[in-house]
Amino acid sequence: MSLSMYQASVPGLIRGLNNLAAILDKAAAHAEAKNIAPEVFLQARLAPDMFPLVRQVQSVSDSAKGCAARLAGLEVPSYPDTETSFPELQERLAKTVAFLKGITPEQIDGSEERPITLKVRSREIHFTGQSYLLGFVLPNFYFHLTTAYDILRHNGVELGKMDYLGGV
Amino acid sequence: MSLSMYQASVPGLIRGLNNLAAILDKAAAHAEAKNIAPEVFLQARLAPDMFPLVRQVQSVSDSAKGCAARLAGLEVPSYPDTETSFPELQERLAKTVAFLKGITPEQIDGSEERPITLKVRSREIHFTGQSYLLGFVLPNFYFHLTTAYDILRHNGVELGKMDYLGGV
Repeated sequence: MSLSMYQASVPGLIRGLNNLAAILDKAAAHAEAKNIAPEVFLQARLAPDMFPLVRQVQSVSDSAKGCAARLAGLEVPSYPDTETSFPELQERLAKTVAFLKGITPEQIDGSEERPITLKVRSREIHFTGQSYLLGFVLPNFYFHLTTAYDILRHNGVELGKMDYLGGV
Repeated sequence: MSLSMYQASVPGLIRGLNNLAAILDKAAAHAEAKNIAPEVFLQARLAPDMFPLVRQVQSVSDSAKGCAARLAGLEVPSYPDTETSFPELQERLAKTVAFLKGITPEQIDGSEERPITLKVRSREIHFTGQSYLLGFVLPNFYFHLTTAYDILRHNGVELGKMDYLGGV
């Protein structure tokens, strides 16, 4: 058995999405227990020019669905970034997980050399499947997942590293 | 060409370590320009029960050297966690990069099924090389790297996502 592009991407992305869903459940319960409006957490950010929690969660979703679609050679599904509540964020994550679960290893395996082009602001970045996954998707996916966790920890939600790692 | 355990681990870890070194250089320059004692940044944390910056950097180093050593079947080098300044953290990162650069693809490739056991607090966690890399090392490495970045952003250091991703 050797490492495959599918094994190196989809299962870890699904696990991260599910861990984030569990983290958001704890945040929602915390908000309710403390009688704090959920929007306070959804709009919380670590610096004035960083994204708030809601956008971090959307970015986790975007990173995961973009990866699975591009490696499989499919169009990236477009989800409107309209979530304004914890339940809506949960729906977004569940929809993303369902999309990833619908993609088979056969669709992704062998995509190491697939050319992938991203438009980031005004420029295009050219990757191979492998450099896109290892040098862009994984750092970026875990960046937004960690920052969502960090925002909630900074705001007093009781979470631990095992909530982030999940299922180790 | 197919994905190898070496390609999926060492190059990304080295890049993350180098990106963190550049981020810490910006933090040190910021501290000096604003006439703020470096210790203020080194001891900054996002929550009272989270690690401060210095420990986040040590954890990035630990995650990287642990991964490379364990996948290669070598003893994990032990570095004392005694850093108290930006230059000492830079030395730690440089020493970690040098260790990783000394490990060849031949030492790591084929480690997908290598049994790896971690002692985490009182329990042992059993992995294969592949589950250790994908389900533990990468989430953990990027967790500490992102949290170091988030601590500095929260404390006003001018950084952007490209400092974190580096070289994309």
